Amino acid sequence: MDIQVYIHPPFKTWNSIIKRSIRNVSRLNDLVFPIINNVKIYGDIALKSYTRKYDHVNLKHIQISEEEITESSKKISDGLKKSIKVAYENIQSFHKKQIHKESKIEVSPGVICWRKSVPIEKVGLYIPGGTAPLVSTVLMLGVPSNLAGCEDIILCSPPNKNGKIHPAILYTAKYIGIKRIYKIGGAQAIAAMAYGTESVSSVYKIFGPGNSYVTLAKQIVAKTGIVSIDMPAGPSEVVILADETANPEYVASDLISQSEHDPESYILLITISISWMEKIKKELKKQLTGFSTRQNIMKKSLERCKMVVLSSLDESIHLINQVAPEHLIINCHNASYWGDKIKNAGSVFLGNYSPVSVGDYASGTNHVLPTYGYAKSYSGVSVDSFIKKITFQKITKKGLRSLSECIGRLSLTEGLIAHKKSIDIRLKNE
Amino acid sequence: MDIQVYIHPPFKTWNSIIKRSIRNVSRLNDLVFPIINNVKIYGDIALKSYTRKYDHVNLKHIQISEEEITESSKKISDGLKKSIKVAYENIQSFHKKQIHKESKIEVSPGVICWRKSVPIEKVGLYIPGGTAPLVSTVLMLGVPSNLAGCEDIILCSPPNKNGKIHPAILYTAKYIGIKRIYKIGGAQAIAAMAYGTESVSSVYKIFGPGNSYVTLAKQIVAKTGIVSIDMPAGPSEVVILADETANPEYVASDLISQSEHDPESYILLITISISWMEKIKKELKKQLTGFSTRQNIMKKSLERCKMVVLSSLDESIHLINQVAPEHLIINCHNASYWGDKIKNAGSVFLGNYSPVSVGDYASGTNHVLPTYGYAKSYSGVSVDSFIKKITFQKITKKGLRSLSECIGRLSLTEGLIAHKKSIDIRLKNE
Repeated sequence: MDIQVYIHPPFKTWNSIIKRSIRNVSRLNDLVFPIINNVKIYGDIALKSYTRKYDHVNLKHIQISEEEITESSKKISDGLKKSIKVAYENIQSFHKKQIHKESKIEVSPGVICWRKSVPIEKVGLYIPGGTAPLVSTVLMLGVPSNLAGCEDIILCSPPNKNGKIHPAILYTAKYIGIKRIYKIGGAQAIAAMAYGTESVSSVYKIFGPGNSYVTLAKQIVAKTGIVSIDMPAGPSEVVILADETANPEYVASDLISQSEHDPESYILLITISISWMEKIKKELKKQLTGFSTRQNIMKKSLERCKMVVLSSLDESIHLINQVAPEHLIINCHNASYWGDKIKNAGSVFLGNYSPVSVGDYASGTNHVLPTYGYAKSYSGVSVDSFIKKITFQKITKKGLRSLSECIGRLSLTEGLIAHKKSIDIRLKNE
Repeated sequence: MDIQVYIHPPFKTWNSIIKRSIRNVSRLNDLVFPIINNVKIYGDIALKSYTRKYDHVNLKHIQISEEEITESSKKISDGLKKSIKVAYENIQSFHKKQIHKESKIEVSPGVICWRKSVPIEKVGLYIPGGTAPLVSTVLMLGVPSNLAGCEDIILCSPPNKNGKIHPAILYTAKYIGIKRIYKIGGAQAIAAMAYGTESVSSVYKIFGPGNSYVTLAKQIVAKTGIVSIDMPAGPSEVVILADETANPEYVASDLISQSEHDPESYILLITISISWMEKIKKELKKQLTGFSTRQNIMKKSLERCKMVVLSSLDESIHLINQVAPEHLIINCHNASYWGDKIKNAGSVFLGNYSPVSVGDYASGTNHVLPTYGYAKSYSGVSVDSFIKKITFQKITKKGLRSLSECIGRLSLTEGLIAHKKSIDIRLKNE
């Protein structure tokens, strides 16, 4: 396994070192566009036909029955139930603090303005399928949507070949309080949530990770419909900043942990010591031999991993802010101090005992985070993602009078005379 | 002038009454795509060439000089300066209250998590050109970007035929503290801010209203670049809910005020009294004769205005929530009570003395708001639009131990064995 190493690379090469592989989704357009259109036109018939084609199953009903949901509880172990409960409670505790009521403001006498947080009425959560059930993503999307107070929360996930959704997904959804679950996946699920079908009612915002078809479908419906999306999604990312105080065993385990997600995972290790970096390389090889099941994925993504040795931690922070990684581990002396200098990242993990997997599952922070450099302008999912803020104002006659000169002059400057008139007419009998 | 009136329309017809005209921007693709590509490839040369073509002026310098900015102060009246100051201060007061620091949370013993608000480093503000300078939009975008603490704030606005930007725009930008201003408009300005040129440095998020070229350009760069945008923009909208306690003179003036924006303005009056609606129609005709300059625009947009009489205010609120208007005036008895029932709107104006023009200029609320039904999931611009929230966590060994069973079990359920390993390796010597 050859890892690419850069020792004190000159500044002008940084961009080429940190760049992500190009997302060329446009080649998928020809596949995804017709799916969206057909679901829009033919509704359930199209959903069933695409499910036959891509999930290899004939669906009788698109919605999961009450019975299937109830049954799910019997099919999973008490240990897993307990773990779901622990994660749920921590995610609930952390996200609850994000709810913040703003008070009314008397901007000037008689001019009262305020913002009110109002839940997005209808939201759709997408949970990818595949070999293993993404229970944690159900929690990460379901808990904040519930806390926000969304009235209508629906969940879509592709069925397996037997036409089932994994009982752990169903159990977790029920635990959170999600009642309507649909056995559909891929671009067809996104189209159904955006436009609605006989079985699936349309929503105002669509959340959740997915493969490149799902991602492109989300972008298309966001551009052409009246639906919004959480954020563009890409392969998972970690940047690790480590100095010689970091334990190479731990850091190697974090690199491998990231590598098992996807052969496309983005992995970057930044350090300030060549000898320490050599330790990591050895440790990586050693630990890798211990894995059997996902070793191929791990090797593929670690081959694309990069290690950079820079001359100082200050320089390293500069590089990290250029990357704007989804996950950032700062494993060095005085980690909090360096953490304060971070401008662009999704979620930051400080110190020797804060591996990314804690935030993936159980510490309470959200794991749906911006990738591909979007952390420069996007936040991860939170309760904020499920609400919008409506502004209100109530002005008294006196308040209006005090602002009339300002409004009059600015509206005339902008050539909007009727705007001035709507003030004057209210004050004309003064 | 024929206004479309609907008396007690059946529920099933509501969607067709309230629907917006279809935004067909795809026909502009062939125009906008090459502009974006050429700016990306040729930089300043392309900017100058498009400015020659669309703004009919040969630009020597793309950036406004320090001198031009200083000069602007001499060219505008003291009265206007005073009005800019009043509006600035109110917008500042209202938006300042949106800054909210969250504290650290000990989710469970040894598991400390928090969110930190961090300004988006580089933002670009677009101010449309045209016959009149949109001073208010400079304030609405500039003040919150400043309060958020964005380091790099740039402003683009198209030049007039003399290669100048109106001094009121320059004065206001300087007043707020914006230093870099560029004389470019249209899709080429959006491309420059997204990709950067020799003169214009690229930004992470682009804000501001614009015509359909600008809107499409914003959508294209958001889909293909690593830049995000404030929200999709469409023609301005008002819905007015009025009962018999509303003064027809005032309500008519609000309808006309909205109509002068654009022949495409969306205007809907909802009331519960046929006789009161007749009064409004008369009053509209009467007031319209008083306008000369923009009467054509007003008539065109009022011809597309709709008036709906429903049987109750409860029913009216239901209709409004389906529309999700940009601006909503509730001018009826107990306006606050009805305002509390609003689920979808950009900004709400309560009572007889709260016309939309107050919020457009001077009450302090933002006037960059979601249109076209996007108020179902989007908020208007605020300080939040200029920050992102990064999550942090610092876990102690004890904290990690307490979560290890939960993380281990969930990661195995999801088939991510190395995630479990990254925890176990840290606790193995226990």
